[in-house]
Amino acid sequence: MFRRIERAYKRIKNVVVCTPVMSSGTLNKIVDCECYLKCENFQKTGAFKFRGAYNALSQLSPEQKKRGVITHSSGNHAQALALAANILEIKAVVAMPDNASPMKVAATKSYGADVVICNSYPTARENAVIPLIKTHGYSLIHPSDDLRIIAGAGTAAYELIREVGPLDYVVCPVGGGGLLSGTAIASKSLLPSVKVVGVEPKNADDAYRSFKAGKLIPMSNPDTIADGLRTSLGHNTFRIIMENVDKIITVSEEEIVDAMQFLWERMKLVVEPSGAVSLAGVLSKQINLASKKVGIIISGGNIDLASFFDGMKQNLASKHACSRKD
Amino acid sequence: MFRRIERAYKRIKNVVVCTPVMSSGTLNKIVDCECYLKCENFQKTGAFKFRGAYNALSQLSPEQKKRGVITHSSGNHAQALALAANILEIKAVVAMPDNASPMKVAATKSYGADVVICNSYPTARENAVIPLIKTHGYSLIHPSDDLRIIAGAGTAAYELIREVGPLDYVVCPVGGGGLLSGTAIASKSLLPSVKVVGVEPKNADDAYRSFKAGKLIPMSNPDTIADGLRTSLGHNTFRIIMENVDKIITVSEEEIVDAMQFLWERMKLVVEPSGAVSLAGVLSKQINLASKKVGIIISGGNIDLASFFDGMKQNLASKHACSRKD
Repeated sequence: MFRRIERAYKRIKNVVVCTPVMSSGTLNKIVDCECYLKCENFQKTGAFKFRGAYNALSQLSPEQKKRGVITHSSGNHAQALALAANILEIKAVVAMPDNASPMKVAATKSYGADVVICNSYPTARENAVIPLIKTHGYSLIHPSDDLRIIAGAGTAAYELIREVGPLDYVVCPVGGGGLLSGTAIASKSLLPSVKVVGVEPKNADDAYRSFKAGKLIPMSNPDTIADGLRTSLGHNTFRIIMENVDKIITVSEEEIVDAMQFLWERMKLVVEPSGAVSLAGVLSKQINLASKKVGIIISGGNIDLASFFDGMKQNLASKHACSRKD
Repeated sequence: MFRRIERAYKRIKNVVVCTPVMSSGTLNKIVDCECYLKCENFQKTGAFKFRGAYNALSQLSPEQKKRGVITHSSGNHAQALALAANILEIKAVVAMPDNASPMKVAATKSYGADVVICNSYPTARENAVIPLIKTHGYSLIHPSDDLRIIAGAGTAAYELIREVGPLDYVVCPVGGGGLLSGTAIASKSLLPSVKVVGVEPKNADDAYRSFKAGKLIPMSNPDTIADGLRTSLGHNTFRIIMENVDKIITVSEEEIVDAMQFLWERMKLVVEPSGAVSLAGVLSKQINLASKKVGIIISGGNIDLASFFDGMKQNLASKHACSRKD
């Protein structure tokens, strides 16, 4: 599987952003270790997902490219597939749940994909996709449980380790498990003694429970602020995670918001809740990281700020009105 | 003066962050040019000010270092001086106006400086500082109108140009004028044909009016969301700007907020209003930048997000309370 990541990297390296690795003296003091944040919020479409989407689409046959592709996603994979398809001139259709962020739906459309809105239950997404595949012959590009997607996702950790050198730990968010699977394979192949830790919201802890039980225990429609991590592990990602990951820990919703606040206020990084989950795991001190070198995958930064900035503009307008009255 | 910048760079380069240069395909499309953002929001203390503060303090005599330093600042210079003094083990006192951001006051204190709160009128700040200098023999480190501060500030553009090569334009915010002065000297010395443009809030347009009139026209207590740009040009910065800057343009409060929103949502960068003013100038299309290579100085990212994240946590708490009732 590591060969797949190396090949994916060669395929995508001229198209993806080689995202910066950031660090913070304040963070290192708080957690008493050396942290290296791989900032995939700066990736094209605002999340690591573009790596896998572009890798998958660029491997389709001419015939498959002609027919087009389809997927289901709450947002980041949707945008990534839409842009990758746009670049490669492939038709893309995306089924998005009705609780997806309006900004993510709009962005997906803006990249040229057709969006089909469906119910938010996992089976509803698949039910929306199957008849369209039958009718149009689209290729399904699963958001996480696809080896091409996993290999693409693994190129983020691959870049991180090639840039910063040996690490003792790599900490990574887990939702559908594509990023954690790719990260674990890349990390363990380049650094055999590294420990790989997955971090999951307590409110969507299917990976934590599956990992502990040694069997796949999917979860239906969990409620967490980390909208990108509401999906459950698939058969491929479960198998890879069982074989390559050392530990999965969970964090509360409050811990996720605290990690976001640190990233925004102290590190000046706009990171979405799902993207801050890995740092929340490090800050939770469930793993003894004292004096270690720790890679932290920050997976994305797509968050709707319209109401925040609308509020700021309303303040300006009311101030303006007051000063006119004065 | 360029020699001063080169010497400043040698003095500070191992202590300051060599901040990343970011770009955005979407931005380039919108403004039809190639933009390179020098992201000083990632600088130590969250703004370019640390460059000048460290440069100034490291040139003091042992006797001056022993007596300590004093300044007046609404926030970013205050924090920068506090940290630089802390690193160099120098006592620092800062007079901050009573309308300064509470976060900036707290950060200044956390770096170990003594903070004296004063009225927000420019003369009030100086009145607070003079008796303390008389009593304790502190060295005054002016936030902008000091050649050591200007030389330090100029190292940001120096780094930018050394990294990205020739540029047609460099666009930079202007408040007290220290950053614009240093930027103009560094840019024109490295690239004789480059055009340097200052951007100022319309609500605090003393530099725009002074530049146009050819004489210094200070402004008292202007009201702009760009809190770092409320100060007026000084004698040194006015002279350097008259000699080295090609144009000063102004932007509205709404344009500043729009530029911030673009930086946060699309580029995932937390930038404060003052830091977004240069991009607001580029987005305002007052300068014809078609097909040009444009350097944009993003000066800082210190903005109080406590109420934003408190709101997010209150939402979590009320959701939790509802689900308990269910």
